Amino acid sequence: MENYEKETIAAIATALSDSGIGIVRISGENAIYIVDSIFRSASGKKILTKVQSHMIHYGYIVDKDENIIDEVMTSVMKAPKSYTMEDTVEINCHGGVLVMQKVLETVLQAGVRLAEPGEFTKRAFLNGRIDLSRAEAVIDVIHSQNEYALSSSVSQLKGRLSDKIRSLREDILYQIAFIESALDDPEHISLEGYPEQLAEKVTGFEKEIQKLLATADNGRLMKEGISTVIVGKPNAGKSSLLNMLLGEDRAIVTEIAGTTRDALHETINLHGISLNMIDTAGIHETQDVVEKIGVERAKKYAVEADLILYVVDASETLDEDDQNIIPLLEGKKAIILLNKSDLENKITEESLKETLEKVLEHTGEIQILRTSTIDPSSENSGMEELEETIRNMFFEGKLRHNNELVVTNLRHKEALQDALNSLQLVEQSIEDGMPEDFYSIDLTSAYASLGKIIGEEVDEDVVNEIFSKFCMGK
Amino acid sequence: MENYEKETIAAIATALSDSGIGIVRISGENAIYIVDSIFRSASGKKILTKVQSHMIHYGYIVDKDENIIDEVMTSVMKAPKSYTMEDTVEINCHGGVLVMQKVLETVLQAGVRLAEPGEFTKRAFLNGRIDLSRAEAVIDVIHSQNEYALSSSVSQLKGRLSDKIRSLREDILYQIAFIESALDDPEHISLEGYPEQLAEKVTGFEKEIQKLLATADNGRLMKEGISTVIVGKPNAGKSSLLNMLLGEDRAIVTEIAGTTRDALHETINLHGISLNMIDTAGIHETQDVVEKIGVERAKKYAVEADLILYVVDASETLDEDDQNIIPLLEGKKAIILLNKSDLENKITEESLKETLEKVLEHTGEIQILRTSTIDPSSENSGMEELEETIRNMFFEGKLRHNNELVVTNLRHKEALQDALNSLQLVEQSIEDGMPEDFYSIDLTSAYASLGKIIGEEVDEDVVNEIFSKFCMGK
Repeated sequence: MENYEKETIAAIATALSDSGIGIVRISGENAIYIVDSIFRSASGKKILTKVQSHMIHYGYIVDKDENIIDEVMTSVMKAPKSYTMEDTVEINCHGGVLVMQKVLETVLQAGVRLAEPGEFTKRAFLNGRIDLSRAEAVIDVIHSQNEYALSSSVSQLKGRLSDKIRSLREDILYQIAFIESALDDPEHISLEGYPEQLAEKVTGFEKEIQKLLATADNGRLMKEGISTVIVGKPNAGKSSLLNMLLGEDRAIVTEIAGTTRDALHETINLHGISLNMIDTAGIHETQDVVEKIGVERAKKYAVEADLILYVVDASETLDEDDQNIIPLLEGKKAIILLNKSDLENKITEESLKETLEKVLEHTGEIQILRTSTIDPSSENSGMEELEETIRNMFFEGKLRHNNELVVTNLRHKEALQDALNSLQLVEQSIEDGMPEDFYSIDLTSAYASLGKIIGEEVDEDVVNEIFSKFCMGK
Repeated sequence: MENYEKETIAAIATALSDSGIGIVRISGENAIYIVDSIFRSASGKKILTKVQSHMIHYGYIVDKDENIIDEVMTSVMKAPKSYTMEDTVEINCHGGVLVMQKVLETVLQAGVRLAEPGEFTKRAFLNGRIDLSRAEAVIDVIHSQNEYALSSSVSQLKGRLSDKIRSLREDILYQIAFIESALDDPEHISLEGYPEQLAEKVTGFEKEIQKLLATADNGRLMKEGISTVIVGKPNAGKSSLLNMLLGEDRAIVTEIAGTTRDALHETINLHGISLNMIDTAGIHETQDVVEKIGVERAKKYAVEADLILYVVDASETLDEDDQNIIPLLEGKKAIILLNKSDLENKITEESLKETLEKVLEHTGEIQILRTSTIDPSSENSGMEELEETIRNMFFEGKLRHNNELVVTNLRHKEALQDALNSLQLVEQSIEDGMPEDFYSIDLTSAYASLGKIIGEEVDEDVVNEIFSKFCMGK
């Protein structure tokens, strides 16, 4: 494997559909030499093996019979000042699918192997330019679905999480070293009173980790979107609500057909918050909400959802159907939209609250809003209030760019949780008056868990797994 | 409009789907200044307005609050040594859809307008870096569907067609100038015997243009593919043939659903020749080829097709269905595939030829091949012969890379035809002994027609029409 990881690799780094510009990227010991063999500068004079690093050269890629494949610009970036820290060449060619493939083919024929998905970034990691959490941020930046996810990924890419983890690890390592030294050399270093000091330190570490962990749920919602189910009787205005929300920012709306026809998912972006909408319209279309199977499905979605939007037609009184829907809100974050607020209202917020209190054990996470889906542009539509309510409910209004360190990665969350558990064991050992080497064992394991985040002490399998999710050419 | 065409423009130049790298391209007077205002070099020192041209700089794009949008590489290319001949900056950012959009948005907010499709190339044309035929080649390179189309577009991009047209125009202009001078100054320049000389020259010009025109049909087939219809009775092996052909080079096969369910088009690449297959299987599936509507459809496809592949089950005798299919071949290029040649043959090439001669007026363009679709990898499958036959039928075996100047553009073909017509008028005038200024008028019009190819003497509308077909960011 040693050799495999040193081989010169190439891939198309841009998306494979017709566009203006395409990039074929080559990295490794022979990158410059090989591209030079198939590149003819327009002036006929430039030899890539002799040019200055980080300069752009205009010319042609030719096949072995000197037939021109495409007119290109090549950029040479010499080791170690490149993405991979290896010699790297980027060929900017025309962005047609066939022409990009032909340029890549010509490069491969000149003696390079095709890169695996994520292999360029993997090399950046293996060669030590970035640690694992920063490498993971690369793919998160690319797949960001909303601005908050993007800004938190960029912040992680810049190393903010890494810096925090490194500083925590250093502090832990200092304690480990102190204990080891004292145990090695009890004559000169006393552990008198140390357990109390350590307990205080450990509490501090725990707080910092807990603070990070506390961001992880928001982090997931930020990255993946808030899983949202719309429920309500037919004609309450569910479809209008959905259309109005979709209309907000149609450009970034995507439609993914789910496993069943009923589960059509749509992602809606509300100024940076992504809602992954599950439209249960199909269930209620039958006019038969009491129908067992329908309720079961709605229940299933509701149980799994982060947020329930319950649309109520305020111009009609609550009926049996509503009585069947309300229990779904038990224990969930939910927003009840008193819709058709423009018409005469038969349901008031007060009467609704009374009903909720009768049916539900606690209604603390349920908000009630008045909406009108007749005219989306109207100030009374209630859409701004809805957005504001969601923001407060999930991010306590705190969602800001670049201000807070947010954990968005499940792997990081698990590692932080492991580290926290180990620290709690240390605390317990201190409380129980255990010998100092017990502290050391659990501190070491907290240190190792945190190390996993930045890619120290991780298995090759984990590394391979992470990079296999990357796109080609990155 | 003057100002509009000078404004600094920006667009995403790579395809808009998640990938490793994305490029936002900015061109115009303020390009460098504006990107500098939103770029922070990693070292904190680089100022883009002061850097050397054609160098790459690593850093970040920031919004107006200095929040980092993405980690990028910027390339500055100073006028006139850039694609557009204007100051140009390319920002290589991460290739996520959202992040590319955010970078573009940040650039636009800094005071640049969004480019129109093709506007970068249009500027390259308007600023005189490339002529119109070379600009047109850019989009042809991007949309090339096969190697021949690609190599002929690259050759056109390099200016081979332009050079040819320019040289023809110069020669014509020389004659015009000579006539004008002689008419202006009859005392010193004699036109004695000139008409005969001119007739000879004009014949030469005509030949050159005819030679170019002769490539245009091949050029179209090369660029767009050979429109091919497969006909035959059910079970003759049509589907197996199609699958076998599709299997040849599955990577570049595309499927485009046509206007009707029956007209499913597939493009097959046979080592550089594209066949646009129209699969009429739906028609014949009914087992009822005589059914009027089916025959009508097949006839319609057959009439429009460049090539008919007629699959015959050689192990069975021709029947009434075949009698209904054979007339479709009248006047067409067709290949009859005597399929199942591995089984006992009840149809011989001789008997088939006899039948054809009885039914058709001429059978000159019909070839007969033996094929077997049982085992695609078998040497006896006949696929190589099929490919060879198609190549001979359409390109007289002459299809080679970079060897021949090929006209692939309908606009060029029409301009060449117009020029030829004008030259023929000159010839006619000479024959009819008309006065010399008549020659001059038609020579001038031939000169103008040829000029259209390279973009001289074309209307703004034509130019706008051409570039509107480009992709964004090119």
